[in-house]
Amino acid sequence: MKQGRIVWNGGIHHVRPGPDGTVVLADGRQLSEQDVQWLPPVEPRTVFALGLNYADHARELDFTPPSEPVAFIKPAGTVIGHRTITRRPADVTFMHYECELAVVIGKTAYRVSKADALDYVAGYTVANDYAIRDYLENYYRPNLRVKGRDNCTPMGPWLVSRDAIRDPGNLRLQTRVNGVVTQEGTTADLIFDVPTLIEWLSSFMTLSPGDVILTGTPKGSVDVKAGDVVETEVEGLGILVNTIVSDEQYFASKQ
Amino acid sequence: MKQGRIVWNGGIHHVRPGPDGTVVLADGRQLSEQDVQWLPPVEPRTVFALGLNYADHARELDFTPPSEPVAFIKPAGTVIGHRTITRRPADVTFMHYECELAVVIGKTAYRVSKADALDYVAGYTVANDYAIRDYLENYYRPNLRVKGRDNCTPMGPWLVSRDAIRDPGNLRLQTRVNGVVTQEGTTADLIFDVPTLIEWLSSFMTLSPGDVILTGTPKGSVDVKAGDVVETEVEGLGILVNTIVSDEQYFASKQ
Repeated sequence: MKQGRIVWNGGIHHVRPGPDGTVVLADGRQLSEQDVQWLPPVEPRTVFALGLNYADHARELDFTPPSEPVAFIKPAGTVIGHRTITRRPADVTFMHYECELAVVIGKTAYRVSKADALDYVAGYTVANDYAIRDYLENYYRPNLRVKGRDNCTPMGPWLVSRDAIRDPGNLRLQTRVNGVVTQEGTTADLIFDVPTLIEWLSSFMTLSPGDVILTGTPKGSVDVKAGDVVETEVEGLGILVNTIVSDEQYFASKQ
Repeated sequence: MKQGRIVWNGGIHHVRPGPDGTVVLADGRQLSEQDVQWLPPVEPRTVFALGLNYADHARELDFTPPSEPVAFIKPAGTVIGHRTITRRPADVTFMHYECELAVVIGKTAYRVSKADALDYVAGYTVANDYAIRDYLENYYRPNLRVKGRDNCTPMGPWLVSRDAIRDPGNLRLQTRVNGVVTQEGTTADLIFDVPTLIEWLSSFMTLSPGDVILTGTPKGSVDVKAGDVVETEVEGLGILVNTIVSDEQYFASKQ
């Protein structure tokens, strides 16, 4: 099952995919998916993110692949939906996308074993965990100026229920910038896979329904510029579209 | 003005301080502050925390005092109220308290100058930002096993309104363990003071009403053990009481 959230007429509605690029409301009405205003498919209380969770990406950044998960928390204000804009500040030199499998927790998890971990998953979605690389080398990375900026984590379009995904450890990832493929990978290359992350996090803290785990990104992060249309896709989950805008476009945006 | 939040009869109530160690409900009833069940004075969406924001504490940990704020995000599940318990896991060797001035944001702040920063503050409270020091030396510190565990951030008892505190940059801090003073400091020694933190954070992200900034702790963090009663006090804000418990006590706790 796929479920998204949109705003229509001042209210929040859940929608499912319809034919010919439409979304379908509960009452059966069809709207064009390009015209509706999307929200993230869930409203997470806590957003966990993983750094350096693909060995090829760690090497790309000149880091040694970690021996335990490099997890950190993202502020809730970073999360936005499908078909949104994300600002590239004028004063930074390198901003890259990160196509990621996002795991949505379905029930309270504490000290859960790898073997049982997927039972605690509600479903999956696509995330684009943008980073401002200028600040990446800071000893205390990932600091808030890399990963904490407003609107820097588009997520969606759909929450895809767990039962629809046979193996979250074998999904292809792809990013396209203005239609050109710039990043390809597979969750088979995760250093710490989804069950391991749930086991590790829940070994010392409680995961709650709606919490989201961003599992990290493979190699292939390139600089994006204002005007770029960034599509991040995870096999079976859908295509998340986001457009990079300049300071001027961002602050002039009316939507 | 001081305002706290308690649970009484299955509901959440705001209370003010009464005479002789009581709290007063809106309808005038007085309850003993020792008997009521406290909640944190606010329910923050985003909890910012500062590492190494007192030079003496940075030196105590063998770190060079930072040249810019070392800020990170704490998971919302860490926050609990006054007169609560916090677990010391059996498998760690060093767990320390951190008495901190906590700043509660009152209105949306973006690109706010130091001069105007305090206008965006709703008020202040006391926080105890416990840390599991075993994991502190990790390159990617502060990692979640240091600062992200359940119930590791007692906060309260009161939200003290901004107008009641003349200068947040001149408040004494004191921690007592079982009645013995173990930590003393003053917010006059903050490397990055409250207006600077608001200016810095809001220069690249939005602060929202209810967000909390934990401003860091001075020198004097010592190991705590199960059974220790830890009182953290900030001048003018009140005394926050928390008790350290063992795994056995924690998992057997009925409240």
